[in-house]
Amino acid sequence: MAKILIIGGGGMVGQKLANSLDDSPLISDADDITLFDIGFPAVGAPADARINGNVTDAGAITKLIRKRPDVIFHLASIVSGEAETNFDLGWDVNGEAFWSFLKILRAEHLASQGNWVPRVVFTSSIAVFGAPYPDKIDDEFLSAPQTSYGAQKAISELMLSDFSRKGFLNGLSIRLPTICVRPGKPNLAASSFFSGIIREPLNGKDAILPVPSDVRHWHASPRAAAGFLRKAGTLDLAQVGTRRAMNLPGVSCTVEEQIEALRDIAGNDVVARIKPEPDAAIMEIVKGWPRNFNPERALSLGFKAEDNFHQIIQTYIDDDLPNA
Amino acid sequence: MAKILIIGGGGMVGQKLANSLDDSPLISDADDITLFDIGFPAVGAPADARINGNVTDAGAITKLIRKRPDVIFHLASIVSGEAETNFDLGWDVNGEAFWSFLKILRAEHLASQGNWVPRVVFTSSIAVFGAPYPDKIDDEFLSAPQTSYGAQKAISELMLSDFSRKGFLNGLSIRLPTICVRPGKPNLAASSFFSGIIREPLNGKDAILPVPSDVRHWHASPRAAAGFLRKAGTLDLAQVGTRRAMNLPGVSCTVEEQIEALRDIAGNDVVARIKPEPDAAIMEIVKGWPRNFNPERALSLGFKAEDNFHQIIQTYIDDDLPNA
Repeated sequence: MAKILIIGGGGMVGQKLANSLDDSPLISDADDITLFDIGFPAVGAPADARINGNVTDAGAITKLIRKRPDVIFHLASIVSGEAETNFDLGWDVNGEAFWSFLKILRAEHLASQGNWVPRVVFTSSIAVFGAPYPDKIDDEFLSAPQTSYGAQKAISELMLSDFSRKGFLNGLSIRLPTICVRPGKPNLAASSFFSGIIREPLNGKDAILPVPSDVRHWHASPRAAAGFLRKAGTLDLAQVGTRRAMNLPGVSCTVEEQIEALRDIAGNDVVARIKPEPDAAIMEIVKGWPRNFNPERALSLGFKAEDNFHQIIQTYIDDDLPNA
Repeated sequence: MAKILIIGGGGMVGQKLANSLDDSPLISDADDITLFDIGFPAVGAPADARINGNVTDAGAITKLIRKRPDVIFHLASIVSGEAETNFDLGWDVNGEAFWSFLKILRAEHLASQGNWVPRVVFTSSIAVFGAPYPDKIDDEFLSAPQTSYGAQKAISELMLSDFSRKGFLNGLSIRLPTICVRPGKPNLAASSFFSGIIREPLNGKDAILPVPSDVRHWHASPRAAAGFLRKAGTLDLAQVGTRRAMNLPGVSCTVEEQIEALRDIAGNDVVARIKPEPDAAIMEIVKGWPRNFNPERALSLGFKAEDNFHQIIQTYIDDDLPNA
């Protein structure tokens, strides 16, 4: 039996994770799942408790931590586009609140006489990287973020590593590829269009493409993201060693290749719903993003993503299109 | 005319910097130098103001920043050994107080209608790196610190970069090699012995060597450190680009090579004052430290250290031994 806490459990990835915990050795019928978020979908993933609250509320976080969950997934953050335009909000939520979360964990660890050492899985991002890049980013490439969101994720990784090294918790930061195809509505992430150009046409709507089609980027599906999280929640961290931030597998492809995969699967009429409309602000952000990785470490530990963008589209069609 | 603020201006490197500002294009007779620290030497470097205070005192920092210095050198920190044994103190001073300092700067920048954009030079450290290493660490190697001190420095670098990118200030983090030979008394840094084995024998005292003599490490003199800071204070940061943390030049040598250089310069009787006394705790910390670098970027920008350890010893004999 394991107590699981998902901070950010009302969000898209949090819901995918909660819905998929049955597939995990973490979980059995008797398990105790708590989801914490500022909001939840009307029809959502099963949980023993859904708690509404804000990660900046130290009192609310303390109450969650006092229950001493065995595994904590921390997915809550202000997304990249919003952290860039609202500097204070980004730093307060993605920086300060994460630090406060770690301090609360440490206090509870000390209160337990050191017996409670929870697994903490943190969703970091490839936004910790900044140009210029090699063709493929390897596992030893520096974090030199060019967005506030990326800086906040990189800082959170470093804090989680240090608290882990000290034995207060057992943490792992996983640097998610851009999750695609996201179901539902566009969000404020600058990467939102990567999903939009697939999702909207498949739902009979027009989609705006704000960047040139030769833009190359790094993707994995929501289903793969939930799989990464489950894997990170059960992985033997002795295998991981002291470097507790990890690049994950994904699919590297251009927007053109995305579009051609959509054409193969859904035809010309669907592709015709993609409307190029260059947006200088989004192009400026996206041109600083990673294009490709060589994630040897994660692959050797058994993390898995899709093999190509066709599979990513098919995952959307199988998992989310029926409910769209 | 330039207003200069040195936070940590009472410490060894801060004093070397203040004493050497005459050699810098930063400074003229009319310049205004403020040194801020928790304490100052009785006979110290010239300054228009010496202010006693703690970097964790936001009110004191705000008063300093309201003067809108043109160049701020931030050197104050809890040293590595102490940050490792006193987790809260290290994070409060090296983490939280640095963040607060940046927020105070930003508030003043905004109050100036964006006109005041100070140069901020931050002394980071090679402790941002963690084993395993390549033979030489290059400019794109990751920060994966294995001490709290290293994590705090790495985090401060990331914050300084993001505040710079946003235009609130113009920052540069320089990763100092281990400074050797430090004058004066041993300090709580785990690296203190690297200086001790040279300084104490030259002053007729015994010195303890707590690690095996094949330990290789990366050094620069206090004079070189002051030079790095002056260079960083005047460098055209357009040349530096968006990656605002930099490895610096230094001398890579083993403890054995240090000892042989001392023998060449001062003879067998002096070397005989070095007493090997293995210390498991210090060995554990030191074995995680970098051994050698390939600091191409800093070299191409004109940063300079000594060419060999003989020069480092000679610098101590010239600059500090007469006052010891």
